[in-house]
Amino acid sequence: MHIEIQRKAEIPLSKQIYLSIVDHIRSGLLQEGVQLPSVRELSKQLEVSLVTVVKAYTKLEQENFVTSIQGKGTFVKANRKEIVDRQKEVHSYNWQLSVQDYLPRSQFAQFHHAPEKIHLSSSMIDPGLLPNRYLEREIYQMLSENPRILSQYGEIQGDEQLRNAMYEYVKEFEAPTTPENILVTSGSQQGIDLVARTFVGPGDVVVMEAPTYPGAIDVFRGRGATILTVPVDQDGMRVDILQNLCDKYKPKVIYTIPTFHNPTGAVMTFKRRKQILNLAQSIQSIIIEDDPWSEIYFDKKPPASIKSMDQYGHVVYVKGLSKTLAPGCRIGILAASGSIFKRLCAAKANTDLGSPLLTQKSILPFIKSKKMIDHTKKLRTALKIRRDLVLELLSKHAPFEVSWIIPKGGLNVWISLPSWIDTNHLLLEAKKQQLTFLPGSACYPVELENHHLRLSYSYMSEQLLHEGVTTLCSIFHSVISSKKQHDNSPFF
Amino acid sequence: MHIEIQRKAEIPLSKQIYLSIVDHIRSGLLQEGVQLPSVRELSKQLEVSLVTVVKAYTKLEQENFVTSIQGKGTFVKANRKEIVDRQKEVHSYNWQLSVQDYLPRSQFAQFHHAPEKIHLSSSMIDPGLLPNRYLEREIYQMLSENPRILSQYGEIQGDEQLRNAMYEYVKEFEAPTTPENILVTSGSQQGIDLVARTFVGPGDVVVMEAPTYPGAIDVFRGRGATILTVPVDQDGMRVDILQNLCDKYKPKVIYTIPTFHNPTGAVMTFKRRKQILNLAQSIQSIIIEDDPWSEIYFDKKPPASIKSMDQYGHVVYVKGLSKTLAPGCRIGILAASGSIFKRLCAAKANTDLGSPLLTQKSILPFIKSKKMIDHTKKLRTALKIRRDLVLELLSKHAPFEVSWIIPKGGLNVWISLPSWIDTNHLLLEAKKQQLTFLPGSACYPVELENHHLRLSYSYMSEQLLHEGVTTLCSIFHSVISSKKQHDNSPFF
Repeated sequence: MHIEIQRKAEIPLSKQIYLSIVDHIRSGLLQEGVQLPSVRELSKQLEVSLVTVVKAYTKLEQENFVTSIQGKGTFVKANRKEIVDRQKEVHSYNWQLSVQDYLPRSQFAQFHHAPEKIHLSSSMIDPGLLPNRYLEREIYQMLSENPRILSQYGEIQGDEQLRNAMYEYVKEFEAPTTPENILVTSGSQQGIDLVARTFVGPGDVVVMEAPTYPGAIDVFRGRGATILTVPVDQDGMRVDILQNLCDKYKPKVIYTIPTFHNPTGAVMTFKRRKQILNLAQSIQSIIIEDDPWSEIYFDKKPPASIKSMDQYGHVVYVKGLSKTLAPGCRIGILAASGSIFKRLCAAKANTDLGSPLLTQKSILPFIKSKKMIDHTKKLRTALKIRRDLVLELLSKHAPFEVSWIIPKGGLNVWISLPSWIDTNHLLLEAKKQQLTFLPGSACYPVELENHHLRLSYSYMSEQLLHEGVTTLCSIFHSVISSKKQHDNSPFF
Repeated sequence: MHIEIQRKAEIPLSKQIYLSIVDHIRSGLLQEGVQLPSVRELSKQLEVSLVTVVKAYTKLEQENFVTSIQGKGTFVKANRKEIVDRQKEVHSYNWQLSVQDYLPRSQFAQFHHAPEKIHLSSSMIDPGLLPNRYLEREIYQMLSENPRILSQYGEIQGDEQLRNAMYEYVKEFEAPTTPENILVTSGSQQGIDLVARTFVGPGDVVVMEAPTYPGAIDVFRGRGATILTVPVDQDGMRVDILQNLCDKYKPKVIYTIPTFHNPTGAVMTFKRRKQILNLAQSIQSIIIEDDPWSEIYFDKKPPASIKSMDQYGHVVYVKGLSKTLAPGCRIGILAASGSIFKRLCAAKANTDLGSPLLTQKSILPFIKSKKMIDHTKKLRTALKIRRDLVLELLSKHAPFEVSWIIPKGGLNVWISLPSWIDTNHLLLEAKKQQLTFLPGSACYPVELENHHLRLSYSYMSEQLLHEGVTTLCSIFHSVISSKKQHDNSPFF
């Protein structure tokens, strides 16, 4: 088990150790019953004092993540029998726990396939709203005309026809580039990862919004970056605070989701977009502009992308089509210029030698024929209905201590609860009632905030959405009212 | 431009700088006419003496990679006009050259789509030998039964049915594991990359065969690993030398291609497989066993995989199906156990959230129905014919100074020329004659050997193979005889 600690960070070392172990347990990387390293071992490994480790372990025990057994050691929470069984079972792999890894948390990755009935956790679109039958017919035709697509590697940069079509598509929402400057990726996740593996090394400073997309946090942490955060308000990333950080730390990469920010839904103003680009130019930084769903707007078209103003190649624009078209194909693009683009193409070669030709050709006719434009229109209508439903239910049923931001587009509502509520605990309750959401702490790169949650309204049918939001509100009520009883009780 | 230097390596720093810049130029990352940093700048950036940089630049100029222009600087080789044009053109992206990257060479990645007529460079199988029509029909059926495959994310670990089928398939050639311990990857390249990104960090020691698969070199260099090499003889990696290295450096990862080694074709003996596993156990290292094509054997079945003997989870077995079944689908697997497996699954989530469901389901029926077994039988026959043709032509036409290893399986012949011949230069000549091969230097992680080349006999038709090998032999003849004339000339 590798535990990252940053000696320069403002978070106490014991808390960093605590958080890292919690990550490992939540992600299932440390299973129930597994023994943690002894206090002495860990203090030696991390070069910290015994007291620091003891503090972390005590907090873990208080929070019910681990159990200490006198004379035996500290174990990930389970009952005693499980610990004994587990020790027998893993005996032969014990050596593996001493292999250092460079892996960040990834605890919510497994949610897609969780057994609960109502998923409000994943920003995915209801398969019923996606054009499967269209794509299916087009795949038949494409393969019967050219079955050799199955037996060829594509170009590393991506299929030329698809790059042309994507160029036309992104032009529609003002993210100009050229087909030569587009690289096809396996989803936008890979686009972010390619920038990180090419330009970010241990100790390099990366700035992210807080909260932000959890998958991106993991990528930068995995590169050993020092992550600094900037809060988000209704106009997007707080550029005034970013300015201060840039002056002081000269970050290598600034990661932002300017349009329908994940998770808050905020839209960065045009003015801030210009400011952030100017900043990047002045300190020679790279901006990753992540655009998961700017075409899903409910009122008016959002401002033009930062990329569209970028004359000197500071912006790497990253766009996925997994959400809005065909998750089963996992296609995204990135657009960049100059030597940065060339280096990203070389990184793509190292990663997987290029995305599969089959998946690229499968979505090509749809995008080329402008059906994609019509399809996104329909998506806007369908998702607006679902968003409205959720907002209406929240207004009607949520306790007055609960607040949320009205999203003008995208797939999520960001909900804030009183600060004493930990949505990680709330999730356990929700799961009992066949419901999932994304606890807000997953979206914070450094100093966690536990009292938010992200609710995705795009995946469930209206009926299940209704049931889910109503149940969630009743969970909110019961938690808040039980605390009130507590507080009023003379015996406490 | 980021230049890796290893102060502890036995290669002089000036040579390391030279090699790194050559990599950048060959890969196209540094284009013709681009200006290199000044001697002073580079010496400051790398913290080396001015003399060291001057030595590297002088060598680059001698070898015709760069031109110095008095009072202007050092430029990647081009004519003066190109330099001037180029300077104008890249002006706005000049800032990008100061962005450090962590990128290794990847210079041969673009070969797949080179314009030459006869490709002896890439280890790919002739599309005419792959079952495109079969797969096509199966894709039709699969999609008409379940079009929602297009609109779903798969499991991060990979489709369960495919994992079951792959389990049955790899069992056939004695690489036992369980379906639960299989992770579906985007080709074997990604399998190697996942291990590297999870367990290899800056300065960690990785042992590789020399020569070895270039794509794996790039991955480990990209992680900042210290690479040590072990030579290969006809029985595979020299385990005696490995033993010495392990005693001294305790490598974290040992990367090997035991069966039909790429590029030499060597097969590691059963005895050495056991030894290497024992070694890894004794020093708690991870072995990556890369198995690109063990099912393509011409005489007898190769020894069982190292994985099949692995009781304690030291081996990560990596297998691609891109070569042998459907490059257009880019499917591979890795098999590992215990916490190492869990950590690799988490890394897969970070990389791309799971391979596309479409490509996985596309090859599923073929593998499940055992058609794959019949197909590999046919491949063995067809590729044996091509190998025999190449060996026959080499025997007949190659100069007696040229030698090669007879491959007992796989897709390549490794050809050695007299040590004064640099196959990178030879390649330029070959390209003029519409021919490509892989220069041997690409396969060496540390101390390059320039007088070998890899010839792949799997991609071209027999007719083009005939033409290609004959042409190649005549190039050998002309290079060798011109040198002889040289040597005999009284005027030199």
